[in-house]
Amino acid sequence: MLVSPVISVAVDSQDPVDPVVSVCWSRDGRAVRIIDQRALPQHLVVRDVTTVDEVCDAIRTLAVRGAPAIGVFAAMGLACVMQSLSQAPRSEFEQQLGSVAARIRATRPTAVNLGWAIDRLLLCASSTYGDGQELAVALRRTADAIRAEDIEMCQRIGELALPLLAAGARVLTHCNAGALATAGIGTALAPIYLAHRSGRRIQVYVGETRPLMQGSRLTAWELQRAGIPTTLTTDSAAAELLRTHEIDCVLVGADRIAANGDAANKIGTYGLAVLARHHGVPFYVAAPTSTIDATIDSGAGIPIEQRDPNELSAPHGIEVFNPAFDVTPAALISAIITDRAVHYPPYDFR
Amino acid sequence: MLVSPVISVAVDSQDPVDPVVSVCWSRDGRAVRIIDQRALPQHLVVRDVTTVDEVCDAIRTLAVRGAPAIGVFAAMGLACVMQSLSQAPRSEFEQQLGSVAARIRATRPTAVNLGWAIDRLLLCASSTYGDGQELAVALRRTADAIRAEDIEMCQRIGELALPLLAAGARVLTHCNAGALATAGIGTALAPIYLAHRSGRRIQVYVGETRPLMQGSRLTAWELQRAGIPTTLTTDSAAAELLRTHEIDCVLVGADRIAANGDAANKIGTYGLAVLARHHGVPFYVAAPTSTIDATIDSGAGIPIEQRDPNELSAPHGIEVFNPAFDVTPAALISAIITDRAVHYPPYDFR
Repeated sequence: MLVSPVISVAVDSQDPVDPVVSVCWSRDGRAVRIIDQRALPQHLVVRDVTTVDEVCDAIRTLAVRGAPAIGVFAAMGLACVMQSLSQAPRSEFEQQLGSVAARIRATRPTAVNLGWAIDRLLLCASSTYGDGQELAVALRRTADAIRAEDIEMCQRIGELALPLLAAGARVLTHCNAGALATAGIGTALAPIYLAHRSGRRIQVYVGETRPLMQGSRLTAWELQRAGIPTTLTTDSAAAELLRTHEIDCVLVGADRIAANGDAANKIGTYGLAVLARHHGVPFYVAAPTSTIDATIDSGAGIPIEQRDPNELSAPHGIEVFNPAFDVTPAALISAIITDRAVHYPPYDFR
Repeated sequence: MLVSPVISVAVDSQDPVDPVVSVCWSRDGRAVRIIDQRALPQHLVVRDVTTVDEVCDAIRTLAVRGAPAIGVFAAMGLACVMQSLSQAPRSEFEQQLGSVAARIRATRPTAVNLGWAIDRLLLCASSTYGDGQELAVALRRTADAIRAEDIEMCQRIGELALPLLAAGARVLTHCNAGALATAGIGTALAPIYLAHRSGRRIQVYVGETRPLMQGSRLTAWELQRAGIPTTLTTDSAAAELLRTHEIDCVLVGADRIAANGDAANKIGTYGLAVLARHHGVPFYVAAPTSTIDATIDSGAGIPIEQRDPNELSAPHGIEVFNPAFDVTPAALISAIITDRAVHYPPYDFR
């Protein structure tokens, strides 16, 4: 259980401007400050995280979730934890770094950004001269860079995807690929924020996203906060929505994209892709370049996290099938929008 | 709020033989005894219902649900309420009958069995000679017949659909079309019960069925009670299940079937039908003949009940799309199993 200090508990403690800030440094710079997403939408709980136990718990219990936000938080968390060892000689620092990095990396298997961010900090350390002091500074600088890049990547995804959303567009999304899932304005929600700011009236539909309700708890909350018209449905109403509500596109994020364009994302995404194809509706995936795992040929190589059966309230003794993610084959994806380009099929990210 | 007396609250108060008895007469015959399905699976609450307010509340709040069970309960409820007027002269009895019937009929719009059962009691009254006493007896007899026929229809659906389920079959269902949804052994679950009894090992998969969880609360409960292996998933995991778990067929109930075979059923059914087609898996609908509405050409004519937005816990001010049902077009239905035959496309129920 995450027991790091609660900094504030008022829903209105952040300025109600979009976007929310999901991960940043505390004011004194000694802690990673997060929005504890488990408490939303009832409470905006902001916590300061400093220890490796707290970092791991925050990721594992989804206090911080969303592939890009996990990557940014892992980097900042690792840098933060290592700061306390900055008086150590190089060998001790490196040994501890390896052990802390391994623990953070093991928290969740599917999002590639987590391992990507950790690897980047390890590479930074191995290519920096000096003892703990120098290494800690370098780690911190790299973590800051990762966060800054994430903010920038969100912005660029938004700009690149913006032409896909005409004025009045009706967009169906799933789970939360918004500001709460990144350090910036989100991935799938980035063009929606930009379109809204530029005066195009966008209508967003989002499924609850069982079992952990990221759609109703997080996406509906952050879009409403930004004044963007949002309609909530059950996940299973998506087909009826696509049949009757003239949805212009489905737009989702991703946790890992294979070299051939197969994309892992929240459970239910694959079904939406099939339904979108059946109804002739474009299906778009938006994700930063760090989400692409070119070492994996296809979705078959993406590890899928099986989560606790207790996330579903099953009668005692009933078996539960509860994968956190599914893989949408590239053939069902109309375009993949990264911070670099709008990619159309056939995809080749090698 | 339904306030009719609670008769028992122990989960094990009914004999743990399959099937459960969802609707029957109380021992003294003066009340309709129901399982209050809102309390499952935590509690098996049995209530005795006697007044028109209680009958309407029980249907509206889904204490009794499932198209066939609603029909049986409406008939028994109407007969029960009218019994208290058996001392009235014919004209007063008939006037009250019309008004009570109209109130019960208005509770839920989609299931055709409700109106069908009410109409049958009204026809019975209009074709019976005598005063309140004679009419009340005739209504009761017709209600008993409707219940007995429903039990028989479930059995025949089960027998007719049984050849569709080979030994070891893996069946995906949705919502609850079992014993709790009928007076007998269910519609979609009827062949599953019969297959299980005959020793064929059937594996059932069921989605939670948001927002009211009939899958996890009711289907998982009644199948487990009967010792039938059952796996619970989120609704949105259905696509992944169809892709990976070698599902042999999807088997669901229906609330109203149009003359052309279009079938209204619990929200999410249409999406399952699209997904089944995409994965080359047969999609079957099982329902008694009373579910067929030959007066309606196609699904476009079926009224769809929009339910309370509060069934989804949306952040304050968020719009909610919460239809209780969707319509699966006949073209996606591999076969419709009634108590009379296994119908294959093209369907024509005129």
